[in-house]
Amino acid sequence: MRKIIKVGMLGIGNIGKGTYQALEMNHQKIAETTGLDIEIVKILNRNPAKDRGIDIPKEKYTTDVNEILSDPDIDIVVELIGGIEPATTYMAQALSNGKSVVTANKAAIAANGPKLASLAQENHVLLRFEAAVAGGIPILTSVTTALLSNEFNEVHGILNGTTNYILTQMSEYGKDYAEVLKDAQAKGFAEADPTADVEGIDAANKLSILISLIFGTSAAPDVIPTQGITAVSSEDIAFASEAGYRIKLLASALKSGDKVYGNVEPALVPVSHPLASVNNEFNAVFINGNAVDDLMFYGRGAGPLPTGSAVLGDVIGVARKLEKDSAYDIVPQLRYDSGLEFAGEGTNKYYVRMTVADQPGVLGKITTVLGEYGISIEVIQQKYPHELDGEIVVPLIFILFPTEKSNLENALERIMQDDVVKSIENIMRVE
Amino acid sequence: MRKIIKVGMLGIGNIGKGTYQALEMNHQKIAETTGLDIEIVKILNRNPAKDRGIDIPKEKYTTDVNEILSDPDIDIVVELIGGIEPATTYMAQALSNGKSVVTANKAAIAANGPKLASLAQENHVLLRFEAAVAGGIPILTSVTTALLSNEFNEVHGILNGTTNYILTQMSEYGKDYAEVLKDAQAKGFAEADPTADVEGIDAANKLSILISLIFGTSAAPDVIPTQGITAVSSEDIAFASEAGYRIKLLASALKSGDKVYGNVEPALVPVSHPLASVNNEFNAVFINGNAVDDLMFYGRGAGPLPTGSAVLGDVIGVARKLEKDSAYDIVPQLRYDSGLEFAGEGTNKYYVRMTVADQPGVLGKITTVLGEYGISIEVIQQKYPHELDGEIVVPLIFILFPTEKSNLENALERIMQDDVVKSIENIMRVE
Repeated sequence: MRKIIKVGMLGIGNIGKGTYQALEMNHQKIAETTGLDIEIVKILNRNPAKDRGIDIPKEKYTTDVNEILSDPDIDIVVELIGGIEPATTYMAQALSNGKSVVTANKAAIAANGPKLASLAQENHVLLRFEAAVAGGIPILTSVTTALLSNEFNEVHGILNGTTNYILTQMSEYGKDYAEVLKDAQAKGFAEADPTADVEGIDAANKLSILISLIFGTSAAPDVIPTQGITAVSSEDIAFASEAGYRIKLLASALKSGDKVYGNVEPALVPVSHPLASVNNEFNAVFINGNAVDDLMFYGRGAGPLPTGSAVLGDVIGVARKLEKDSAYDIVPQLRYDSGLEFAGEGTNKYYVRMTVADQPGVLGKITTVLGEYGISIEVIQQKYPHELDGEIVVPLIFILFPTEKSNLENALERIMQDDVVKSIENIMRVE
Repeated sequence: MRKIIKVGMLGIGNIGKGTYQALEMNHQKIAETTGLDIEIVKILNRNPAKDRGIDIPKEKYTTDVNEILSDPDIDIVVELIGGIEPATTYMAQALSNGKSVVTANKAAIAANGPKLASLAQENHVLLRFEAAVAGGIPILTSVTTALLSNEFNEVHGILNGTTNYILTQMSEYGKDYAEVLKDAQAKGFAEADPTADVEGIDAANKLSILISLIFGTSAAPDVIPTQGITAVSSEDIAFASEAGYRIKLLASALKSGDKVYGNVEPALVPVSHPLASVNNEFNAVFINGNAVDDLMFYGRGAGPLPTGSAVLGDVIGVARKLEKDSAYDIVPQLRYDSGLEFAGEGTNKYYVRMTVADQPGVLGKITTVLGEYGISIEVIQQKYPHELDGEIVVPLIFILFPTEKSNLENALERIMQDDVVKSIENIMRVE
């Protein structure tokens, strides 16, 4: 006999619709494989008059969240409203009422994960959030189950589809950021207000969750050094390409001693690296474990059905435990007790593009200052001269051996004091 | 208080050593994360005098398998002998004695998986084999947990590191198969007897397991059409490269209606496909699910530590269940009851390379026959003429639109009846 698992869903936006649709498509397969009959019985819909473009029986809708949070028949609450509040309050209430919670909400988990995880444990229920990081890619499940046999050394993620789409299009068609953003918005790959994506905030939320799971330490999104892609120009992309690199918005963290260094920044990735071939709206997570070595997971990080796949995967996982009354472990486990400490931006190779006057001796001045700051140069490229404000200038591109970013910034400040240096156009990490 | 989980290991070859070493490296992290104290207490070592190059206390070794299979203190038996027998007998005995089993043995699971899975269920213990497919890549765990919310449409794997290394080296250095094989053997990437790898047998075993997990149907290795890489020449690789393809040994299966088509064959993969960039000894599994869409997992498919990572991941998974006395589900679940039927090689695009006399009208004759068999041509390339047995001949390369392989073979047989066609050099699938 099949066990019926009743699910209440908060929100019926894109991910809500994707989750509902994925369950409609695969209900039978799930039932045959697991013996579980999963039913979405109630859906919080603040605006029931709005046409959602999906055929859902009207009697499932409610405008009152308490009809879900307090319904004794509901086993699992799926939170798909997004944003920190009121989502966190609703999840906390569901957990306190003895319901397991599945969410796709990276902002709420990054901000309040520890609190919600404790509540789940106190109430002997489960909290899962696979969909919060890299959409359909099962990275959280993997690092907390099959890969638990590893100490991890590093993680690098392309965790935001909007920015990866923009950078790929800039790279393929030589177009500028503003032009591609407009096109992405028209195609639905970027939101009307793209700030959270293009400024790296979305990726920082996801990296914060990954750092807790992989390194067992706390790195709140606002302490992760974060730089978006708005300063990346088509010139940077062209120069990087010539030197054998692709530019990707990387969310990275790596362990060194008892410190974890990490940031979200546009970075130059060698074309031979598997992350360099991750294009358009696709996401990927590259990790290195001390036993498994290099691994990469590639897939769709957003979109209704891929994200719905992850939400529904979590619902099944929770339901399998509920079915056997064995709600003992919280997978994935947010951990902050490993003894490692998050220490922000570490030592990296850097790419620097600047514009200088086309005069003899300029290169000598710059390299002398870099030398004084202990910064060695791997590559210098001088590009074609052009006119700027009545003066002939040339672009200079440097790839520099590892240094601390603050040291590099100090050196560049000194360099800028010389009139022959017109501007520092961009600084990016090199992987 | 930590729960002690006692493990007996059968075999101390490369994977055994890797598993032992991975546990030594990560014992503390595993204990901190899971509360489990996992100990390898006994190891079957047929030849204790042999120096294994690893520091293991001698008292752990035994030459008598029953000291492990019948030890009431041992919770989990890890089988790392390889080959179908005596491994299957040992695993069956362990399961019958109420011990859970973890194995890396693709041949034994492909041959006897259903029997062993039933035995596990009868005895309320667990059977896991993540390491049997794609080494350290957590593909089996993923498709049976986080991705269980999908019906799968297709799977394509680069599942054998030896052949991928050989094909990559042939491609990068323009060398011939025999030369690269010798080099791979010298470097330890290929065995002295490479038959199981280069003939595709190893990949067919792994594909058989994947088909059961992904499509819930049976495809014994010996019913999977299997072709190795020994007939791939440096000419094929060069011609494929010109046309925008890489040649990979692909283990593929796809669902169409109530049939599953599958095979192991060298195939032309477009350079833009993520599988095309999987090089040297790396493995990858590309899958498509009806909700999650395209996903790819990339990592090390062999090697002591990466395989040990997967073995140990399974041990932890089993131990977490034992700890809570909740040995209820068998993950991954071998299934044969989905109603889908394995139907061998399906309809594919094909690459054909042949040598023909350099005479007028030859191309016309060949294309006429192909037309009679309903086979359309996507690409024809005629290469430079050269002398063969005193006659001037030219290589002809075709890329053909989808057809059944048997139909193509019939057409080529008819074409070969004409004296102007000297030989069919190679036929490969095009993805």
